[in-house]
This record gives sequence, structure tokens and C-alpha cells, in this order.
Amino acid sequence: MDRHAFPYLHRITTRWDDNDVYGHVNNVRFFAFFDTAINTWLIREGGLDIEHGDAIGVCAESHCAYTAAIAFPDAVDVGLRVAHVGTSSVRYELAVFKADEEEPAATGWFVHVFVDRATRRPLPFPPRLRGALERLA
Amino acid sequence: MDRHAFPYLHRITTRWDDNDVYGHVNNVRFFAFFDTAINTWLIREGGLDIEHGDAIGVCAESHCAYTAAIAFPDAVDVGLRVAHVGTSSVRYELAVFKADEEEPAATGWFVHVFVDRATRRPLPFPPRLRGALERLA
Amino acid sequence: MDRHAFPYLHRITTRWDDNDVYGHVNNVRFFAFFDTAINTWLIREGGLDIEHGDAIGVCAESHCAYTAAIAFPDAVDVGLRVAHVGTSSVRYELAVFKADEEEPAATGWFVHVFVDRATRRPLPFPPRLRGALERLA
Amino acid sequence: MDRHAFPYLHRITTRWDDNDVYGHVNNVRFFAFFDTAINTWLIREGGLDIEHGDAIGVCAESHCAYTAAIAFPDAVDVGLRVAHVGTSSVRYELAVFKADEEEPAATGWFVHVFVDRATRRPLPFPPRLRGALERLA
Repeated sequence: MDRHAFPYLHRITTRWDDNDVYGHVNNVRFFAFFDTAINTWLIREGGLDIEHGDAIGVCAESHCAYTAAIAFPDAVDVGLRVAHVGTSSVRYELAVFKADEEEPAATGWFVHVFVDRATRRPLPFPPRLRGALERLA
Repeated sequence: MDRHAFPYLHRITTRWDDNDVYGHVNNVRFFAFFDTAINTWLIREGGLDIEHGDAIGVCAESHCAYTAAIAFPDAVDVGLRVAHVGTSSVRYELAVFKADEEEPAATGWFVHVFVDRATRRPLPFPPRLRGALERLA
Repeated sequence: MDRHAFPYLHRITTRWDDNDVYGHVNNVRFFAFFDTAINTWLIREGGLDIEHGDAIGVCAESHCAYTAAIAFPDAVDVGLRVAHVGTSSVRYELAVFKADEEEPAATGWFVHVFVDRATRRPLPFPPRLRGALERLA
Repeated sequence: MDRHAFPYLHRITTRWDDNDVYGHVNNVRFFAFFDTAINTWLIREGGLDIEHGDAIGVCAESHCAYTAAIAFPDAVDVGLRVAHVGTSSVRYELAVFKADEEEPAATGWFVHVFVDRATRRPLPFPPRLRGALERLA
């Protein structure tokens, strides 16, 4: 699963406090990278309005497997593609690459359920959002 | 898998910036809770020396499934148990409970591999660390 | 300025990823401790509704001076008092203590301005919030 | 103090969890931006070895004043300059700009003391590090 397997690559700059005591980016931050790549796509391409929109995406499940270390001040590229789009949920597949490397340092997946902001009940995807997800399939 | 299923419960106070735009603790923070509960046990019970010890624990894989929201300023209890201890790796099962609730808001697992700090090659568990892990099985 | 100088002490548990590469709690986290102690007080004592209330507190200025290191897994106590309450702004003085120590590891201050959530224009403090602030003076 | 007042500008991508409940980048993150810009310069230009070097930089004091909001997914540019270099301490002045804006969203300063990694006693700046700092004066 190299970087060419992903229709969207999102570059993220690492930060001083991403590195933990062991001198590499802490495992937890990879999930922040996932969240950031996914939501950037949804905002820019899918019209997601994170402040005022009725539909919000909540994480139902997430997973990451780590194969190599990354360390600040390296930048990373997060690869994002969509494995499955349902009525109100979507399963993404992701990988984190050290900037410009072919093989990932980590791979994972993430399930988003879209819900009503007030009631937190599942909502069908608005058409523009669904279109943006389908372009990543 | 209620809170009584876990031999160790670690209380964590939430913070202002755990809540994201949607008003609940961000999914990423649950992995920080996992890391914190695991390493507190290893330091206090297993003699892990995170600053100078030869053996360090690196995360190979982690997973979380979310079933309910938690929000600052609630405290949480992280339940921790060990599903399997190998020569140099261990698989933990975890759950995050809103303080004093019986049913978890999230459940997950986490695989730690113990490696040499300098070479990052797997190391057999030191006996005190193995003992601490076995007490959680 | 020892811990007895503060009418409110808020205990916070540290986390694995608070420690940076140098093995101590990163300087940035002390500001997260400030935010957490202040907002916990405002929510519990002042009736601040961070999700739906009209009045929200935004940080105008913050400062911290560091005198000793703290490291995970130590807990910390954040001392909070109010130096000045104006019409819509308040200046807090804070200190961070390693759990149960008398002398602070860091001291600082923080200015909050209360504004309308929608317009971001300053609002006079609601009476219950003002009362809670005055009890810390 | 517009962006031209700074000899070094460091671009940082914001992340999903930088935004807090109020929909803007949390005040605490600005200090993470400071740390990141400073240490990137020291590593790339000053030869700072954050994993193995004898000299490490610890924060003695930091300050930030906030004048405008920034929100994910905006990128930011951190302006960095040196106000004073002593024997083993340095005072930086910083500002955070929304990407490509002239006027800062926040301004601040940060004092670094260089100390021996083991004893934590002040050390005179190594020559290459001093040179890098002086180029920012």
C-alpha cells in the first residue's frame, strides 16, 4: 500500500510536542493525523460545516498499525481513500508516510457515522458530502 | 465488559482541550488515556524506567470502538487487563468509563513490543515487568 | 506564593504524552492546566455553559514562569485566585504544584474576556459567574 | 509588528483537535506553535541534537497576547526573531499569522535557557547554536 494507492494525500507539519520521551512521534498523534486529513477533505470538498452544520461526523471505530518511526521536525503525508460508503456511515483507509517516502510508517482505518448535531441520531449523507466521499472510493 | 472485568482501573481527569468542536472528548484522546493507564502500571508495578531503562515499549497496533460520549469536566476511569503476554510483546484490553459508570464509553486494545532503546530490536521482558503484566492477565 | 495562597486547588493527573523528549512535562501543557482549572471552576461554581451559553470566555493574554520540572506520572495541583474582576474581563493568578508540594513548579497569569458567543463582542458577566469569580478574589 | 518584522517564518498546518469547543484554535496551541518554530530553527540552523546532544533548551518564561481568532483548517505562519542573546539564555519574540495575512493573530515572547542534559545546569551556547541565534537578531 504505497502512496500511489491513495487519491488524496494531505501534508501535515509535525510539532515539537509530537515527539514523546522515546524521541519519536507518539502513537496517539497518528489518530490526530487521520482526523485532520479526513476533516480537511470533508470541509474543502464535501461542504462540511463543523461549526454550524446539522450533520456532524462522529468516530465509531479506529485502528492503526505502526511499522516505522517518524520524528519531529519531519513532515508527514496522510493518504486517504474510502473503502465503503453506506447511508450514514463511511469507512476510510489511511496511511501515514514520512514526507516523500513510498512506504508507510503506519496504516489504519476509521469509521465515521454522520449524525444530527442536536439529537446525535444518524442522518443520511447530504448529497455534496456523499459526492466527495465517492470521489475517494 | 463492565468495570469489574478489569483488575486495574486508572482514573484520569479530563482537560478543557480534550473537548473538540462537537463538545465531547475527541476520539484521539482515548488513545492517550490508553497510553497513560498502561505506562502508569508499568512504571509503578513493573519497574519501567522511561527515561533511562534499556527496555522501552513501542506501540505496534491499537484499536478503539466508541459507544458513548464523554465530555470535560467529567473524570474517566480506564480499565486495563492483559490478554496475552509473549516473549517481548503484550496485548492489552482496555475500556474507558465515565467516572463511576458501569458500562464503558469505549473499548479497545493495544499491542506493546518491548525493544532495546538504542537498537530498537525486540528484547525479552525483564522479570519484574513480566510479573507485573502477568498480574493483569 | 505557596499553595495556601490559593482559595481553589484543582488536581490534574498527568499523561504519558505530557512528557516531551527531555523527560519532563512540556512547557505548553502548563497553559492547558491553567485553562482546565479556570474552566472547571467557572462550570461548577459559576454556571458557565460551554456548549450552549451566550457568554463564553476567550483568552486575551497568558503568561507562565517555570522554576522546577514536573514529570508524568506525577499528579499536579493548580492553584487559582482572582486578581481583578472588571465589567467583562478577569485576571487570574495561577500556580502549578507537584502533588502535595508547597512550592510551585510554575507560576503565571491569564486574562479572560467574556464575549457573546455569536458576535464575539464583550458582555458584562452574568451575576452567578461574577459571584464565583469574586469568591476567588 | 507585521510579518516583515521577522527574519524567519515557519509554516504550521493546523489540526482538527486544535479547535476547541468555541470553534477556534485553543490559546494553548499558540505556545506549541512557538516551541515548534523555535526548535525547528535550532535543529536545522543551529545543530541542536534533541535526542543526544549535551545542551538542551528549557523554557524559563513564556507569554502570549491574542488579538484575533484562527481556526482549523487554516494554516499559520509563525514569525521568529531574537531580542537578546546572553551566555546561556535567549529571548525570542514571536507572532502567529493566519497564512498570508499581514497582521498577527497573536504575539508573544519566550525565554530559553540552555542547560546540560544530565545536570540541568546552565551551559554556554555551543558556537554553532549561538551563530544561528545571532542570525535572527
